Amino acid sequence: MVRNIVRGGIAVLGSTGSIGTQALDVARALNMRVAALAAESNIALLEAQAREHSVPLVAVRDTRAADELAKRLRDTRTRVVPGEGGIRQAAVAPGAETVVVAVVGAAGILPTLDALEAGMRVALANKETLVCAGKLVMESARDHGADILPVDSEHSAIFQCLQGRAVAERLILTASGGPFRGMDAAALKSVTPEMALRHPNWNMGRKISIDSATMMNKGFEVIEAMHLFSMPLERIKVLVHPQSVVHSMVEYTDGAVIAQLGPADMRIPIQYALTYPERDPAPAGTLDLTAVGALTFEEPDEGTFPSLGIARRAAALGGTACAVLNGANDTAVRMFLENRISFDMIPALVGAALDKLPIEKNPSLQDIISAVDSASGFVERMCS
Amino acid sequence: MVRNIVRGGIAVLGSTGSIGTQALDVARALNMRVAALAAESNIALLEAQAREHSVPLVAVRDTRAADELAKRLRDTRTRVVPGEGGIRQAAVAPGAETVVVAVVGAAGILPTLDALEAGMRVALANKETLVCAGKLVMESARDHGADILPVDSEHSAIFQCLQGRAVAERLILTASGGPFRGMDAAALKSVTPEMALRHPNWNMGRKISIDSATMMNKGFEVIEAMHLFSMPLERIKVLVHPQSVVHSMVEYTDGAVIAQLGPADMRIPIQYALTYPERDPAPAGTLDLTAVGALTFEEPDEGTFPSLGIARRAAALGGTACAVLNGANDTAVRMFLENRISFDMIPALVGAALDKLPIEKNPSLQDIISAVDSASGFVERMCS
Repeated sequence: MVRNIVRGGIAVLGSTGSIGTQALDVARALNMRVAALAAESNIALLEAQAREHSVPLVAVRDTRAADELAKRLRDTRTRVVPGEGGIRQAAVAPGAETVVVAVVGAAGILPTLDALEAGMRVALANKETLVCAGKLVMESARDHGADILPVDSEHSAIFQCLQGRAVAERLILTASGGPFRGMDAAALKSVTPEMALRHPNWNMGRKISIDSATMMNKGFEVIEAMHLFSMPLERIKVLVHPQSVVHSMVEYTDGAVIAQLGPADMRIPIQYALTYPERDPAPAGTLDLTAVGALTFEEPDEGTFPSLGIARRAAALGGTACAVLNGANDTAVRMFLENRISFDMIPALVGAALDKLPIEKNPSLQDIISAVDSASGFVERMCS
Repeated sequence: MVRNIVRGGIAVLGSTGSIGTQALDVARALNMRVAALAAESNIALLEAQAREHSVPLVAVRDTRAADELAKRLRDTRTRVVPGEGGIRQAAVAPGAETVVVAVVGAAGILPTLDALEAGMRVALANKETLVCAGKLVMESARDHGADILPVDSEHSAIFQCLQGRAVAERLILTASGGPFRGMDAAALKSVTPEMALRHPNWNMGRKISIDSATMMNKGFEVIEAMHLFSMPLERIKVLVHPQSVVHSMVEYTDGAVIAQLGPADMRIPIQYALTYPERDPAPAGTLDLTAVGALTFEEPDEGTFPSLGIARRAAALGGTACAVLNGANDTAVRMFLENRISFDMIPALVGAALDKLPIEKNPSLQDIISAVDSASGFVERMCS
């Protein structure tokens, strides 16, 4: 998956979000040049980031917000570009050798493909890119000799475990189990967005916090791992590990298991994606195994949390099925956050979309994007 | 540490012991040729092993036992050689590309050096070789382009963790804590050999079971790790991990920790040493992390178990200090097994030997062997 050794400037797409701000923390500590930033509309934070890092190019998806930011940055050399086109420009900004793709949702796909086509290294934190368009994206990376480095703590763990080793027999993704681990299906009906946003171990954005509560997040990670590590679906196992100390594992044919452990701090996988194959001093303290208490592992409760099984079903179907999964889930999560549906309706709606919508077996990029939109529309219609 | 890829015949020194018999289990499963065996005096088992594997050369340290075995094997093509010289012959037997050094005690040093000088790969299960003569042995491996592959589960874990990675910041050796973990010093005074031989997780020989109970075993492993991985003493940490699932870990500068896990079965590290860098199917089942219960880690209780600190002191002194440590410990353990001294006298005697005996700073091999003998004699005199 990785061929070239690079350590130059970076572009951060989604720079105002949880991963984006931590990527800038890491870049600051590593003295890395920031060649471009991109975000949705949080111009107060974008302005501060642009000034601190003297960023030449900043993209803002919201056009009015872009105009306002351009005014505020008139005294600087920063150029502000608006809209989707601006974000794609930021992805391939001059001076950036690595682009951190930390935007949320299917919006990650096009800039990732742009960067790969430009032969850049992609530090990938956006799940939807591989979930929806894994086959196309991996092919593009291969065709253009570009590298994809995983930023998800689980995939970074597996990537670290795999360095220079024999072929893996099985990947074991660990899952915290989320805030509702141990609850039964009846209790899940009445959980609120506020309860779902309270993740026990990781400090994350809103969308991914809900995905973690439903365990769809882990389903996405299974799909990503399948693409990243060329591993058949049935050889990717999920284990619930509530302490989030073991970030994932690789099992070899002889029974040996190699695991990556560390503090539950995203700056470590982010930094590793930016410094690979070197390692720089710890961005987030070291692990004290005598202080973390007992490490435990259990099978996921797939009866109560059906999302994992639904994701596996989509992965097995292939084609546009994972794009449908993603579009339906995106919209269902948004409706839950808007208090329009109950928590248990999220997997119900996603499962229904997967059952009802047509699957295109050999999709183009346009087919994938259409599938995301259709699934989103399908879920909207089911609830209106 | 490892340069050549080899997979040919093996010689097993100490073939009737715990590691030796498991090495033959692995060799049988891998269809490896057994070119030589060596043992102390258990000719009943040696005869069976020689017949099963059609071994051309068998060494027996005890001369009378060697004569008897030669008679019993008259109908075969097996040649029986007696004494220390016989064992050194077995170490470099024609047809053996790897020698498994699983003899107990300082007797492992000379055959290991012989094998390294012959450019053979050494699968090293004997602790004393590196504890007593680590510097000489590692130099010999370098000088002769020979490989040393660790068979200790801890060092095999670290070796597996280090494959193809950045320079390690710290090694973390895990220790079960032995059968007396949690006891206080007063209670330790009255433990019997029988109690000490009951190890909770590993099925091991008598000497190493006692070393595990005193934690001197872990002290030896610290010294071995220092040599095997060229790691300064102060960057080798010991953590007590009673479940023996995580076999050891490597910490990198960025805070990432890579760990090797697996069933507590020596056939896995033995097989890895014999198949490296390949891996063959599991010799001992796979790990079910949902069944092992909670994994816990604690600091070793060095007040109650002073052996670890004594070993570190010897390692810091260098020269013949570790040979003294080993000779004194060997004899003290034997005297404890013979009910001549109490359990807490083992570290007391070893510490005294280290305090009183002269340390040769730049020892020859002869100096090392003399230091082992003097320390042994010193402990005998202290108790007579």
